[in-house]
Amino acid sequence: MKSMYTELDPPTRLLLGPGPSMVHPRVLRAMSAPLLGHLDPQFVALMNEVQDLLRFVFEAPDALTIPVSGTGSAGMEAALCSFIEEGDPVLVCINGYFGERMLDMATRYRADAQRIDVPWGQVFSPKQIDEALKARPAKIVTIVHAETSTGALQPLEEIAEVAHRHGALFLVDTVTSLGGIPVKMKEVGIDICYSGTQKCLSAPPGLAPLAMSPHAVDVLKARKSKVANWYLDMTLILKYWGPERTYHHTAPISMNYALREALRLVEEEGLTARFARHRRNAETLWEGLAALDLTPHVPIGHRLPSLTTVSLPDGLDEVGLRKALLDGYNIEIAGGLGSFKGKVWRIGLMGYSSRPENVVTLLGALERILPK
Amino acid sequence: MKSMYTELDPPTRLLLGPGPSMVHPRVLRAMSAPLLGHLDPQFVALMNEVQDLLRFVFEAPDALTIPVSGTGSAGMEAALCSFIEEGDPVLVCINGYFGERMLDMATRYRADAQRIDVPWGQVFSPKQIDEALKARPAKIVTIVHAETSTGALQPLEEIAEVAHRHGALFLVDTVTSLGGIPVKMKEVGIDICYSGTQKCLSAPPGLAPLAMSPHAVDVLKARKSKVANWYLDMTLILKYWGPERTYHHTAPISMNYALREALRLVEEEGLTARFARHRRNAETLWEGLAALDLTPHVPIGHRLPSLTTVSLPDGLDEVGLRKALLDGYNIEIAGGLGSFKGKVWRIGLMGYSSRPENVVTLLGALERILPK
Repeated sequence: MKSMYTELDPPTRLLLGPGPSMVHPRVLRAMSAPLLGHLDPQFVALMNEVQDLLRFVFEAPDALTIPVSGTGSAGMEAALCSFIEEGDPVLVCINGYFGERMLDMATRYRADAQRIDVPWGQVFSPKQIDEALKARPAKIVTIVHAETSTGALQPLEEIAEVAHRHGALFLVDTVTSLGGIPVKMKEVGIDICYSGTQKCLSAPPGLAPLAMSPHAVDVLKARKSKVANWYLDMTLILKYWGPERTYHHTAPISMNYALREALRLVEEEGLTARFARHRRNAETLWEGLAALDLTPHVPIGHRLPSLTTVSLPDGLDEVGLRKALLDGYNIEIAGGLGSFKGKVWRIGLMGYSSRPENVVTLLGALERILPK
Repeated sequence: MKSMYTELDPPTRLLLGPGPSMVHPRVLRAMSAPLLGHLDPQFVALMNEVQDLLRFVFEAPDALTIPVSGTGSAGMEAALCSFIEEGDPVLVCINGYFGERMLDMATRYRADAQRIDVPWGQVFSPKQIDEALKARPAKIVTIVHAETSTGALQPLEEIAEVAHRHGALFLVDTVTSLGGIPVKMKEVGIDICYSGTQKCLSAPPGLAPLAMSPHAVDVLKARKSKVANWYLDMTLILKYWGPERTYHHTAPISMNYALREALRLVEEEGLTARFARHRRNAETLWEGLAALDLTPHVPIGHRLPSLTTVSLPDGLDEVGLRKALLDGYNIEIAGGLGSFKGKVWRIGLMGYSSRPENVVTLLGALERILPK
């Protein structure tokens, strides 16, 4: 009997929102390779390669790297739940939607969480973190490197020093930076770092690369209580991704194929060239937006190359215009999240989406649909 | 620069272990379709189709169905964490490795969990559950339909009645049954039911179909406390998979393509024909094993067709023989889990792996490698 559902035939979209970004044909092809078992020696060899390639892209040669079997938010939760024990003081830096999410999660794991805020779109100074930690020490300081809701790029180096001076672990969200903007985990001094596959790495969503410094792994192994989450319990999962190869859950085989191929593409391009490409295409976008009288929300000094938030003039029918882009030109960009809803657009130029031809296509379409 | 890692080229394995099972070429092909955004109207339409197809395969036309963004164990944890509030009495029926896992998870969510046991490989009688609930009522009764560690098939109908008579929710693990053995969620009276994609549905691992009856959804919505897990919090996720389509996390797009195609294949074959195929090929396997003097661990009355545990004679080099199967014939079968380690093999005939040609290949290879 033929299915009452038609054959899958999605339109080819230009994905210029906050992710998923477009996926290179080589990555799509990798997913159609026949499956291996999750304990097959050939898959174990592939796991080692993925872990090596992740150390390369995190720039952390001594980190323990694990592609968590969920999307970016699962990486966030794996990082938080594995390092929080009940009552642990945690300092959560919030300058956007994903900082709020970290606080929500930390609270669910019964951290004694303290928030500090700067307005959405701005970034924290090392002094603010220093003062907060002087007033109240913390076991963990969490911050977002590239806020997907605001388009702000948070400098990390000095804050890492401050956190370490106060004896805290430095936990950083690099969902919208890894593979598009330097993360330099080891040089910066990040202890725990996670990302997603569907942003600057340009694999489909479904895995969350997580990296832990040797010090962080020591802290993890010295936990006194069980992690209050089973699926994301890194004390168990590191036994599958470590030399023991003890079964925990069945790894998403095809997604790991995809991630490996996406990371090979990063390696072939080289990190420096890749970061320069992201920067160059973003600058072309910003120039083009200026010519259309559209202004990025974030000042250029801490503006993300991978994701630009555009301030919208009052009264603009932003939903209708996004629909016109999608229906008329097969282009996806996104609206604002949370308090930025209706106030900004979010334009992503990430990974395989970050190409000059995509920038001119978007600018050309915007020119035609924007009210004169 | 060419990558120092070679092009992906995994060997073609005959996957006859406990999962992942083999994936139909149509499903592999579906994953190479270009990505849609997770809020694209075309993806939203696909989500509706996946949910409809899941209702079909669960045989639960009024259930709320959601493909959880993780592997089968994430489905287990989503089911437990979303329905457990601190101190809730939960009765956990344990006759294998995955019952133990449910208890571990329930405890992490601070359930007041009570376990009842029968030996591994055996199944529970309704009377045992009735007595346990008389002695101590529970909010939730959990049981495994098809124990992947033992190969036992647990009858459900009467236990569902018992659980409901005592006012409990009936929560069932169908990881190794859904799509290969009748689950009949509505007719049986299951309130909460989850599975994995990589077993009898024959999609790659990475999603966990979850189904909740209307009554279960009411209970979920009436929770007094926040779910103690963010990523698997069904009170939030049902807003993305429900009419609101509110962003929670980025859905694994390509994996949902794969699941849709795998479910289309189930629909085209028809449930009755599919269950008969699983049964027929299992019987051929059992006859062949008998001819090799190998005995299934579970008596035929409650033996799973999708997964057979084989009792191993003392002194057999089971690890060496499995290596010979893999290296010499590209066939994967699995050893035992937990207390069954070294004592059984686990042979899966699930989904696209359940084919007569695979059964004869395995039997032929076993005949050649087994000690005379």
